[in-house]
Amino acid sequence: MTMNDTRTLRQPVVVDFASTTYARIKPVPVTAVELQGDFWGKRFETVRKATLPSQWDLLESTNRLNNFRRVFGEYDGPFEGLFFNDSDLYKWLEAASWLVARGPDAELEKRIEEGIELIERAQEEDGYIDTYFSVDRRDEKWENLRDLHEMYVGGHLIQAAVAHHRATGKTRLLNIAVRFADMLCKRFGPASDGKVEAIDGHEEIEMALIELARETGHTRYIELARFFIKARGHGLLKGGRFGDAYFQDDVPFDQMEALAGHAVRALYMACGITDLYLETGEEGLLPRLETLWDRLTANRMYITGGVGARHDGEAIGADYELPNSQAYTETCAAIGSMMWCHRMLAATGDARYVDLFEWTLYNGMLPGWSLDGRGYYYVNPLENDGSHRRQDWYYCACCPPNVARTIASLPGYVYGTDAASLYVHLYLDSDAKVDVAGKTVAISQRTQYPWDGAIDISIDADATFGLKLRIPGWSREHAALTSREGQAEAGSRVTLSVNGAAVDATPDANGYVTIERAWKSGDRVRLDLPMSVRVWQTHPKVADNRGRVALSRGPVLYCIEQADMKGIDLDEVYVDPARVAANWEPALLNGVVALKGAAERRAIDSAWEGELYRPFGNPRGDVSATPIDLLAIPYFAWHNRESGPMKVWMNYREA
Amino acid sequence: MTMNDTRTLRQPVVVDFASTTYARIKPVPVTAVELQGDFWGKRFETVRKATLPSQWDLLESTNRLNNFRRVFGEYDGPFEGLFFNDSDLYKWLEAASWLVARGPDAELEKRIEEGIELIERAQEEDGYIDTYFSVDRRDEKWENLRDLHEMYVGGHLIQAAVAHHRATGKTRLLNIAVRFADMLCKRFGPASDGKVEAIDGHEEIEMALIELARETGHTRYIELARFFIKARGHGLLKGGRFGDAYFQDDVPFDQMEALAGHAVRALYMACGITDLYLETGEEGLLPRLETLWDRLTANRMYITGGVGARHDGEAIGADYELPNSQAYTETCAAIGSMMWCHRMLAATGDARYVDLFEWTLYNGMLPGWSLDGRGYYYVNPLENDGSHRRQDWYYCACCPPNVARTIASLPGYVYGTDAASLYVHLYLDSDAKVDVAGKTVAISQRTQYPWDGAIDISIDADATFGLKLRIPGWSREHAALTSREGQAEAGSRVTLSVNGAAVDATPDANGYVTIERAWKSGDRVRLDLPMSVRVWQTHPKVADNRGRVALSRGPVLYCIEQADMKGIDLDEVYVDPARVAANWEPALLNGVVALKGAAERRAIDSAWEGELYRPFGNPRGDVSATPIDLLAIPYFAWHNRESGPMKVWMNYREA
Repeated sequence: MTMNDTRTLRQPVVVDFASTTYARIKPVPVTAVELQGDFWGKRFETVRKATLPSQWDLLESTNRLNNFRRVFGEYDGPFEGLFFNDSDLYKWLEAASWLVARGPDAELEKRIEEGIELIERAQEEDGYIDTYFSVDRRDEKWENLRDLHEMYVGGHLIQAAVAHHRATGKTRLLNIAVRFADMLCKRFGPASDGKVEAIDGHEEIEMALIELARETGHTRYIELARFFIKARGHGLLKGGRFGDAYFQDDVPFDQMEALAGHAVRALYMACGITDLYLETGEEGLLPRLETLWDRLTANRMYITGGVGARHDGEAIGADYELPNSQAYTETCAAIGSMMWCHRMLAATGDARYVDLFEWTLYNGMLPGWSLDGRGYYYVNPLENDGSHRRQDWYYCACCPPNVARTIASLPGYVYGTDAASLYVHLYLDSDAKVDVAGKTVAISQRTQYPWDGAIDISIDADATFGLKLRIPGWSREHAALTSREGQAEAGSRVTLSVNGAAVDATPDANGYVTIERAWKSGDRVRLDLPMSVRVWQTHPKVADNRGRVALSRGPVLYCIEQADMKGIDLDEVYVDPARVAANWEPALLNGVVALKGAAERRAIDSAWEGELYRPFGNPRGDVSATPIDLLAIPYFAWHNRESGPMKVWMNYREA
Repeated sequence: MTMNDTRTLRQPVVVDFASTTYARIKPVPVTAVELQGDFWGKRFETVRKATLPSQWDLLESTNRLNNFRRVFGEYDGPFEGLFFNDSDLYKWLEAASWLVARGPDAELEKRIEEGIELIERAQEEDGYIDTYFSVDRRDEKWENLRDLHEMYVGGHLIQAAVAHHRATGKTRLLNIAVRFADMLCKRFGPASDGKVEAIDGHEEIEMALIELARETGHTRYIELARFFIKARGHGLLKGGRFGDAYFQDDVPFDQMEALAGHAVRALYMACGITDLYLETGEEGLLPRLETLWDRLTANRMYITGGVGARHDGEAIGADYELPNSQAYTETCAAIGSMMWCHRMLAATGDARYVDLFEWTLYNGMLPGWSLDGRGYYYVNPLENDGSHRRQDWYYCACCPPNVARTIASLPGYVYGTDAASLYVHLYLDSDAKVDVAGKTVAISQRTQYPWDGAIDISIDADATFGLKLRIPGWSREHAALTSREGQAEAGSRVTLSVNGAAVDATPDANGYVTIERAWKSGDRVRLDLPMSVRVWQTHPKVADNRGRVALSRGPVLYCIEQADMKGIDLDEVYVDPARVAANWEPALLNGVVALKGAAERRAIDSAWEGELYRPFGNPRGDVSATPIDLLAIPYFAWHNRESGPMKVWMNYREA
């Protein structure tokens, strides 16, 4: 079966909830929004001009593309790299598709076609495609689903194909994905249907299959995703050095009490299950997803939004296990969390999922990408001695193209709609045209966000709808990072006006304030989110953060870096939490708001020289304390200058 | 060549420095000392009665012995387990040898002979032996020295053979080891000699070869060990997911600034290099070894003496990286450190190496062994939620037989001699006969050590020699755990008498106090080491231990365990460091000195419920503090009752 029978071309939305029964908020096409301004406008162009071209060159120079040519005999070297390297091309194609959706780009389109041609020629008769197996490991296909990622790779193929189809209307890549998916449907499923009961060791296929169902209308893909989800947690993957929990195969989802094991796997699993809920409304799924999200954010998440406390097994870790210098917090896990938040928002309509999406965008994912668009972190520690450097690529290069596809699709996350409302999820300088309540509404945001909380929104349409503005969790006076507590008083310092007349800015229980109105072209809305400096402390069970605070402002988390604190051991810096103020620094790191404050340098007693343990109270002599200036930069911008130590959580002096 | 030409049978010493030019202190035979009393006397019997028999049964039931039978066709199953499992039998044979050295044990001797027979029959014509390769992987021999441990396994064969020869005078196993070692000599070495320049990814062969040279008098084994040591650090092992530092192959030894990478490998390497120094006196080696030891103890060692901060790569970790709950601190690494200390003591005569040996014996290795002698920890965290349980065996079972051979040879570490002195390194209830200054001296210790610091030493000999008593580092008033600082005033509270007459107890620069005397039978020495409770704090750069203290008394480190603090969250316990006292508890854990003290329970503010991060100062409400009783038990005895949380480093309240 090919996709000539695709009934309607879908709009280029990242996740398509158009016909999804249980989605309360639908996303808008990635093409509906133009990112503007110095922050996101420039970064978006960086993806096009620097990130994608350099990644394509690396796909070529590292023989990832030759692995495909090898299958059809046009390359005779050995397979190179990791067994799941095909997915790097697929993620790149997904990113490139979101870009070409915006308009012609001859160079990018040429590369996309080149990539699709490689895939097409490498696909086997029966739909199978995985270049690691297609030449000299043909007998080993499907033999080690636990470790060898065939469906994970295929899932990324499907996501790329869906994106390409949505972006271009072309079916060439989609047909490849459909053939692959149909082969899966034929092979895997309940034993009672004569099929193989098996699951892949790395989740990804689940959300991909459901998205393919949305694209094609074929519910068999939802059924297969459902089979994989239900079959998990029963020990089908038995073994491996990290145990069943590594693959989320130790306990069935409906009994799972916390996300655990490999962080990216766990979060991709959660995405797939949320997609299953959105399509089926199956009872029990959503409460369980909410419980897992609450537990994750209340016990196992870094203040960056990052997930993954352990290098060993790339694992989430136990409750309150959040070491800073040894944090793993893979960039892909941050992206997995953002994808999950996007789906949970659709399922619940609750802005707290956008809160975390945005927070993770700035503080969990963005640090993984250098300012020049050509360097990436795989691992994102919150404290480092200066040895951790971004690389232009990795042997395991899952993160770089994952960053690319996320930034390339960011416009699609800014707005949402329901039958009678337009949701503003994210604030960023932009122009958009969105279909809402049967009309096309032009909406612009003029703002210096994330550096400034003043947002001027102009509406160009004559239409009646509710404009729903998210009041970010970080702007609430007393609430914690992800808490719903304190929402009632949240509007206390947020101000809002329509055409100059103040309106109540108190958000509803879902975190949005609604302006119901017959909008006229030229209407102007002004939202002011107070961007005071926030000083954070951590639950006392988190050993690494006792006696330490972190600073944020708006959605941006800060750190101190040696480049700004020359000659000072960052462990000797004690910030005065009451005396930190924001300052725009146009010459610093392409222009950032830096935090400046008063601090003390408390020298570590020289009696410690050469000693690790000493009797209590000794040394306890006078330790010199000298006043110093503190300068903190956005955490996402660290290590874009000379290398040196960095810390998010810094000592503080008691008032 | 076989060992019919062995010229002299060696005494059963653990490491034989009899002809070693650069050894200042020589060990005594393991058979010279009988451990007595409830602490070590009973434990020694436990090795014989519980540990070795149960381990032999496990060698059999896990097919480790069948792997040998498989080579000569008497077992037709597949190879089972890890590629280096042969070494488990070898370590068991070493342990068993030290025991049969003490006198007949028909059951043990039968098993030893059975083991040796398996090895003899499995050895190949050319001396090769490794059951992982000897059947279906014959083409892969020596093909992957980086990962597959052939020389590591062979090193343990050699150590077992040397022990067996020393213990029994029998050459059967020694001949096997010599054939293996001679094959290595033929194959590996400088390319200029037409040999293969290669090294093993896991150090062990170096110290084994040098010991074989000591046993046989053949210096070619020292030459080969020297070749392996010098070839290391030049990237011969290139690759692997943890990088060259994992194997200590990133930098040559003479440029190494800190022990790093895989902890057991690094420490076994240090043992081999110390052995090389002891035999050759090569310039530069000893200062480098001392530098590495200083750096390790001052920056990278747990207060348990354990080494290894990371699960990932079983690695030592960076300076001040010492997480408690995620500590790796493999039991084998503690043993590696003890073996290194023993060699450094010989090289320098400095008691600080015995200080660490003893401290690691009680607090680094002993926790890895259950009180019943049948359970083992591979990983030794300093804090745990109660889920970490000793096991009776491991798939990778390097630790259990390593514990067995260490306890079985412990008598050999108690005393040492030089030309005119008898060193008392360790205090423990025991009777011994030691050759010193040409006479055989009977020496007994009557003591409740480690529970009590009173040691009554009786000498039964008419001989003139210096009795050198170690004044433990922990008994010094102001010094840190491993510091030499404060040694001058160290004797301030230590008292010493000979036949009731007080003598000066001030130790020399090497940490020993010497009683020079023409000893008469019946002379009595009394040493009183003050065993006050010690409260330890950690260098402020160790994030996990800020605001926390640990307790010790004598050589024993303490912890709190849920079983003694029922219903109390151990994170809520704040000890008053000034109010802790020792108490003998005969019914607790087979009899231990427990520490009892005053503490507060400070409830974690309920405002944290469900929150991980909150604005600074919020919550800061009144937190209830209630007085509670603290009971701390020896860390080595944790988890010998019902499972529950445990902590070494506990919160303290300021006076």
